[in-house]
Amino acid sequence: MEVLEPGLQEETSQAVRVLTTRRAVRSFSDRPVRDDLLAPLLDSMVAAPSASNKQAWAFVIVREPRTLRLLHAFAPGIIERPPLIVVACFDRSRAVGGGAWDEGMLCVAMAVQNLLLAAHALDLGGCPSASFRKTPVRRFLRLPRHLEPLLLVSIGHPAQSPRTAPRRDRNEVIRHEQWG
Amino acid sequence: MEVLEPGLQEETSQAVRVLTTRRAVRSFSDRPVRDDLLAPLLDSMVAAPSASNKQAWAFVIVREPRTLRLLHAFAPGIIERPPLIVVACFDRSRAVGGGAWDEGMLCVAMAVQNLLLAAHALDLGGCPSASFRKTPVRRFLRLPRHLEPLLLVSIGHPAQSPRTAPRRDRNEVIRHEQWG
Repeated sequence: MEVLEPGLQEETSQAVRVLTTRRAVRSFSDRPVRDDLLAPLLDSMVAAPSASNKQAWAFVIVREPRTLRLLHAFAPGIIERPPLIVVACFDRSRAVGGGAWDEGMLCVAMAVQNLLLAAHALDLGGCPSASFRKTPVRRFLRLPRHLEPLLLVSIGHPAQSPRTAPRRDRNEVIRHEQWG
Repeated sequence: MEVLEPGLQEETSQAVRVLTTRRAVRSFSDRPVRDDLLAPLLDSMVAAPSASNKQAWAFVIVREPRTLRLLHAFAPGIIERPPLIVVACFDRSRAVGGGAWDEGMLCVAMAVQNLLLAAHALDLGGCPSASFRKTPVRRFLRLPRHLEPLLLVSIGHPAQSPRTAPRRDRNEVIRHEQWG
């Protein structure tokens, strides 16, 4: 409860609790993700910030066992097969700049974070992974050339309580006014 | 209320509402950000996912008027001067890979999204911007070479209700099982 300042209202505290208690979930029970949970998950995802409102993103929602199996086979970053994978892509045809790196990629990450937070609020869990083979994933999903898959996001019901990863000391990562 | 499925509990609905109602806030009242709100803002920020738990991030919290003025002068992306700017940096010394682009940058974006969501839950608002001159910003903040500023995040009390940016049709950005 460390984050809850005495002055915060209950509903604010609840929201901050969702932000601070999310953990990476990598093992899932057999329970499928209910259809009626898709709307809040996906509504949250596409409500993320978007640089210049380009919305340079595209998402493929995978729930069919065959496609899940194929994705899993080419994604060493996904330890256990989840019941749902969201393939989060950067849409290069809507890039803000023109380089290999684009700030629109940061917006894809923010959308994925909204998805993970919505999952956590809904008693689901998940984990993003950039460790996958892009060429076969592109082929299975029939992604056009301008869509670049950045993250595979596993979503499902947690099989167990996720562990808390140790974090760096706050003073090592946050400074005030100047760094040096 | 479109996102609230009848089966969701009140506290889940509240969390999903925070995720779906955040808007970019670019104009701020003169009210400073209270000191006691910093803890929930920063706790939320560093609770974001981190690839391989590298935590390849660093943040400078700026509240002094002189530094705010200097940052503002070199950041055309920041329209009005906010009472608080968080400079979110990628720590290249902790990169996951070795290229110019690194998945750790996506984690910086997720941390910024947590910060923006915490701000929204606390009745503050904000906006991330990648439009700033990196060299003077690095110099003012005395950033070492391995810290690369990615986003300047304005935070403050909204001067007015933020506008909703029009969003692309859901069917244009989300597909099921395969794209093509």
